[in-house]
Amino acid sequence: MLYYLYEHFHINIFHYITFRAILAFFLSFFITIFIMPKFISWAKAKATQPIFELAPDNHKTKNSTPTMGGLIYITSAVISILITTEFNKYVLLTLLLLVYFTYLGFIDDYGKIKGSSNKAGLSAKTKFLLQWVGALVISYLLIKVGFDTKLYVPFYKYPIFDMGYYAVIFWAFIIVAMSNAVNLTDGLDGLATVPSIFSLFTLGILLYIVGNYKFSSYLFYPFELGVGELTIIVFALIGALLGFLWYNANPAEVFMGDSGSLPLGAVIGFLAIVAKSELLLIFIAFVFIMETVSVILQVGSYKTRGKRVFKMAPIHHHFEMLGWKENKITIRFWIMALITNLIAILSIKIR
Amino acid sequence: MLYYLYEHFHINIFHYITFRAILAFFLSFFITIFIMPKFISWAKAKATQPIFELAPDNHKTKNSTPTMGGLIYITSAVISILITTEFNKYVLLTLLLLVYFTYLGFIDDYGKIKGSSNKAGLSAKTKFLLQWVGALVISYLLIKVGFDTKLYVPFYKYPIFDMGYYAVIFWAFIIVAMSNAVNLTDGLDGLATVPSIFSLFTLGILLYIVGNYKFSSYLFYPFELGVGELTIIVFALIGALLGFLWYNANPAEVFMGDSGSLPLGAVIGFLAIVAKSELLLIFIAFVFIMETVSVILQVGSYKTRGKRVFKMAPIHHHFEMLGWKENKITIRFWIMALITNLIAILSIKIR
Repeated sequence: MLYYLYEHFHINIFHYITFRAILAFFLSFFITIFIMPKFISWAKAKATQPIFELAPDNHKTKNSTPTMGGLIYITSAVISILITTEFNKYVLLTLLLLVYFTYLGFIDDYGKIKGSSNKAGLSAKTKFLLQWVGALVISYLLIKVGFDTKLYVPFYKYPIFDMGYYAVIFWAFIIVAMSNAVNLTDGLDGLATVPSIFSLFTLGILLYIVGNYKFSSYLFYPFELGVGELTIIVFALIGALLGFLWYNANPAEVFMGDSGSLPLGAVIGFLAIVAKSELLLIFIAFVFIMETVSVILQVGSYKTRGKRVFKMAPIHHHFEMLGWKENKITIRFWIMALITNLIAILSIKIR
Repeated sequence: MLYYLYEHFHINIFHYITFRAILAFFLSFFITIFIMPKFISWAKAKATQPIFELAPDNHKTKNSTPTMGGLIYITSAVISILITTEFNKYVLLTLLLLVYFTYLGFIDDYGKIKGSSNKAGLSAKTKFLLQWVGALVISYLLIKVGFDTKLYVPFYKYPIFDMGYYAVIFWAFIIVAMSNAVNLTDGLDGLATVPSIFSLFTLGILLYIVGNYKFSSYLFYPFELGVGELTIIVFALIGALLGFLWYNANPAEVFMGDSGSLPLGAVIGFLAIVAKSELLLIFIAFVFIMETVSVILQVGSYKTRGKRVFKMAPIHHHFEMLGWKENKITIRFWIMALITNLIAILSIKIR
């Protein structure tokens, strides 16, 4: 919206992506900080998520903490995005993705609250199916608006090959996988929040580069006109998450719920695609991928060999069983996320 | 040291401050991560700091946590600094400052352990006097090596006036004040560690600008040849602190002690001076200054009016008495430190 102050009244400062990104950050931070406590006291009466019954025993004290905080921070971010961005095709697609996955998460959260059991909400199959539908549509639209389908890999400046329409499947897989990865990680207070901030920050840098003619050619990245605008979305999300952390930090007064983790993961996957850095997610989203791999290994090993690899999966529960305190696990995972994201940022220069 | 690979063998990559800063970061991070557990198990037998007897009751469980972790992370940082920097006058002065204040803190920590009471160690008066002596000498040497004594203020591109030799007193005050401010803040697990990382990061950017001819003239900062090298010291310290956080995160397995907080505060003050940003410390070191002001207000109010302003000072204890959980206070203070440092970074462009 503010972009039109530049377009129609030629107020130059609103032209700059950096300026509007800063604005977006502070806007969504303060909106979240102010709205969240109102939501928490309202929700305490209504929306309480039952703790997954297989989680370690000490998690049972968390039964009265309200969930669906994601609904609030995504809404704050969207308000801030509507105010600060120019509505180009990439911005609109990202908004569509955010709204769809938040809605999906909301149905799931809401169903669980009504059903008063962690098993209620959408069935796992339906949820998975609806994630795929959304991700496939978004990926298809991305090609339709003319986005380049060539695949780039880290540390190498040329594209490997052109995926053509196969990209729809590949990209949808990335979006669905990341969406579920963040969802799995969201099992300790603040565990998904801060690594998401780090991932988004790295993606913000990448998007700025890909959307900037000079930087992209200097660093051997493909240039895509309009992608830079997504940097603003990234900083709106970071601001909202930081505001959320104020209440989500251990001991959490509110959880993000599926309405927070599903869109967060999906948008991280989508932005990595648009930043031409799908495979760099190994570093950008290391903690989320590690959590997911731990579940796959655990289930796979149990089904094929009848043995477990970890005391409990996802892996953060494994460390809990080993006697690490919840809060220490969280902060160590944050440090891991920070270090791996630094590696991701360094890789930008090494192509 | 590695700088001489460039000087004598013309290996170009070792010329770059950015490359050596990254190296310094990872070096001190991993050195700290590997050495700290050895120190912890050794110290568990020997070095345990008695908790200040006026602290809230629940702190008494912390009596068996070893202290003096600062000695280890400063040592790790110094090793990394010796490997990665070119030994110019500013680097040598910073090393001198680090070693002096760490030694001061060490005597204090060691005395407390021997005396088995938080009151033992150096007397408050002796400690304060020795801080001033060190700070005055360093400030005097800074002028002697030819550092500019003009005072700059935030948001304004020209110097206000030339402090001449009065700078020695002003700078020494900054160093002593910051040293004590970080020391006061270090009262909850991780509370001083992460805000120090944020402060150092901001200072790293400022030092890089002041030490770079192009950037300093573009952003209207004075240029000082050789100051850029301190960016490397900053990243060595950040790496060491991040490694320390791995063990210092709540529940802490080790405290930094005075041997960590005194040099940390002193170096933050000193680097702000060298970065020509003494007054920007209001944002760069907001949390530390807030803590210090809370103590001054509390003591001042009690002495003059017989009334207390806070339930307990420093202010983090006040929030504890209000029922906030230790860990939540810590993370909220981190968020405050992050936001205020973002403001400090933004102020760079607004002069």
